[in-house]
Amino acid sequence: MILVGQFDSPVTRRIGVTLHHYAIPFTRDTRSIFGDAAEIAKISPLTRIPALILDDGEVLIDSVAILDHLDESVDPATALVARSGPDRRRVLQVAALAQGTLEKVVAVVYERHYHPAAHISREWEARCRSQLVAGLTELERRCLTPWYCGSKFSHADIMIGCLVAYLRLRLPEAFLDTDYPNLATLSARCEALPCFKAAAISANETMPET
Amino acid sequence: MILVGQFDSPVTRRIGVTLHHYAIPFTRDTRSIFGDAAEIAKISPLTRIPALILDDGEVLIDSVAILDHLDESVDPATALVARSGPDRRRVLQVAALAQGTLEKVVAVVYERHYHPAAHISREWEARCRSQLVAGLTELERRCLTPWYCGSKFSHADIMIGCLVAYLRLRLPEAFLDTDYPNLATLSARCEALPCFKAAAISANETMPET
Repeated sequence: MILVGQFDSPVTRRIGVTLHHYAIPFTRDTRSIFGDAAEIAKISPLTRIPALILDDGEVLIDSVAILDHLDESVDPATALVARSGPDRRRVLQVAALAQGTLEKVVAVVYERHYHPAAHISREWEARCRSQLVAGLTELERRCLTPWYCGSKFSHADIMIGCLVAYLRLRLPEAFLDTDYPNLATLSARCEALPCFKAAAISANETMPET
Repeated sequence: MILVGQFDSPVTRRIGVTLHHYAIPFTRDTRSIFGDAAEIAKISPLTRIPALILDDGEVLIDSVAILDHLDESVDPATALVARSGPDRRRVLQVAALAQGTLEKVVAVVYERHYHPAAHISREWEARCRSQLVAGLTELERRCLTPWYCGSKFSHADIMIGCLVAYLRLRLPEAFLDTDYPNLATLSARCEALPCFKAAAISANETMPET
């Protein structure tokens, strides 16, 4: 299969880390949704990443929907989320909270990218930043150890690892280790894993997703 | 359980329609994420809707994660998506495409809401509108009958029904029935269902979600 997208997109990186963790072989298409928009649109009509091209040519979009498929394709004992029940709910809820937090980071990054300083909506930026702090604070509060949900490495860890790395790359002033020590420790633990190292953010992959 | 959010939020309405379809009893908390932000934040840290408060007090966030829980709680034959396999993948992919399209509508609505006309980023708006058209065009192209995926009513129908209603409410110039006849027919078929009527957009519920 082929993973379409660059790893400075945290949701694309999330898929890359998961594929490596599951030891599912894949190649990559790192063309840009900006520089190569017309080509990406032929694969993903919304010109969004990640997209995953399966071996039979079927194209899957949307990180959550892609993960749903990947999780189903592995042994339940190996899967990064339980098939049902409270354990599943907990992992999906944490991942959703982290995803919602990420969307607020992206909103701030894009507001700055697409507007000259004088045109930035201070109301919008303040609202998003307030939501961002609230999301990180709640994620920090709920964090267990050694992994986010306790003893088992899960999608919650991968999502938060990718979120923290993106914050450090794009909005570093919003993530000080001293403010979120549990998340900082978790991030370091994640980045030390082979599956994270194999999906490191390359200096050649520099545009955020939309 | 209690559904938190207003039905002019298409993702909140999506949960409301699903709860009615599943005949799961619920009450509603229609306080606003704008006017009652501090109160909503006590329920949903990100101050986002929908949130679903379960009978034991647990709060679920994120429409996709909420639906995952609701689908698990009903009989598989009743569920609006298959538990696994190609049928599941098809429904989740269509819903993801519609969700991604919706996010582009919301981006345009918010860009206009938070910026005076002279400060709107024409580049950002044009990019979102182009993605919006591409999403609707692809959704139109793949639409079967009588329901989106064929004979079985599914989450794809609910998501698209809620998307079209939101477009008509917030960005009507972007959805002309003549451009998307299959989606317009599907929307009418959805809105005629009891579960959609029971979750109609009220004139008292007027703020978009974020």
